[in-house]
Amino acid sequence: MDAVPAPDQTPVRRGRPGYDRDRMLEIAVQVFIEQGYDATSVASLAERLGLSKSALYHHFSSKEELLEVALDEALGGLEGVLADAGGRSARERLEHVLHGAVLVLVDKLAYVTLLLRVRGNSEVERAALERRRAFDRRVTALVRAAQDEGTVRSDIDPSVATRLLFGMVNSIVEWYRPSGGEGGADLARVVLAVALGGLADETG
Amino acid sequence: MDAVPAPDQTPVRRGRPGYDRDRMLEIAVQVFIEQGYDATSVASLAERLGLSKSALYHHFSSKEELLEVALDEALGGLEGVLADAGGRSARERLEHVLHGAVLVLVDKLAYVTLLLRVRGNSEVERAALERRRAFDRRVTALVRAAQDEGTVRSDIDPSVATRLLFGMVNSIVEWYRPSGGEGGADLARVVLAVALGGLADETG
Repeated sequence: MDAVPAPDQTPVRRGRPGYDRDRMLEIAVQVFIEQGYDATSVASLAERLGLSKSALYHHFSSKEELLEVALDEALGGLEGVLADAGGRSARERLEHVLHGAVLVLVDKLAYVTLLLRVRGNSEVERAALERRRAFDRRVTALVRAAQDEGTVRSDIDPSVATRLLFGMVNSIVEWYRPSGGEGGADLARVVLAVALGGLADETG
Repeated sequence: MDAVPAPDQTPVRRGRPGYDRDRMLEIAVQVFIEQGYDATSVASLAERLGLSKSALYHHFSSKEELLEVALDEALGGLEGVLADAGGRSARERLEHVLHGAVLVLVDKLAYVTLLLRVRGNSEVERAALERRRAFDRRVTALVRAAQDEGTVRSDIDPSVATRLLFGMVNSIVEWYRPSGGEGGADLARVVLAVALGGLADETG
């Protein structure tokens, strides 16, 4: 947490050795979440990173590029889960996607949090929203396919079902804090159990 | 939507007849949601309402009072649902609370949206967060009681179950738009069905 330059560092070259692109992105995303993306200036980002503005621009051409790379981390993770869900029954693919989405959310918590706050105020944000909508459409198609094969109840509109499922999944960013260990996998199992089987105890 | 004064109105007395407290609150909440509460000035509120600042202060002593009354609308609705869930089995009370919470959310969509964005930046916001937490604790106790009576599966931590349930319920503010008719009651039935029974079709 010593991103602010220590007093003994020269004010001219404040870049720290080993301060790589990934770490810069991680801190920038934290600042976007705390202050809001629109309200964050490049100057305040540079200050938080302990870098000059020109050192920051050496790695990222703009604040918008930081946002774009961060949103791509989150969206790429989610799309990857959909991509490797192929070749099984629709119900199994749906389970794989839900389970995988929770793991991506836990693994990339800050990036997904940022993605969920995007409101479409710029080209980058609108492109991210369009990718989110495309993801939702593919999950909706999966729910519909599972209804058609008779493994998911067909009395619920598939797009409402998808919204409720991902409402549950996405709400995890509001309260989940990594504590190491198996937290993510446990949580993914619980979400899957509630989403498919519900809370009711039918053995009682 | 003619909240901005028409050109033929005198600039001195812009208060419109019949512009009551409820309608002022409704418009103010809309502005808070669009611009963010912190970023909204009393001057911009007055302008949107087509009122002078002193006319606005005649009805509400401060911007914070508008927020307080709005949050109380949402919280009072939710607490009311808990209050009249008494006297049945824990499972039935839980179902009543979930169903009722969806109806409150749909009925008071803007107020609940505002409540869900509160981050605790002021005394009023912290008090609202504390009431939300108290509500969550009572729902968690209800889940635990239903587990004890054997009607809700006991392999899930009751506070995680509560968070997932209300994650699903609260996410409705992101996409639900009132279209008249039975929308809210239908949605409440779907949420209840998914929350208790899950999406799986066990008849197939």
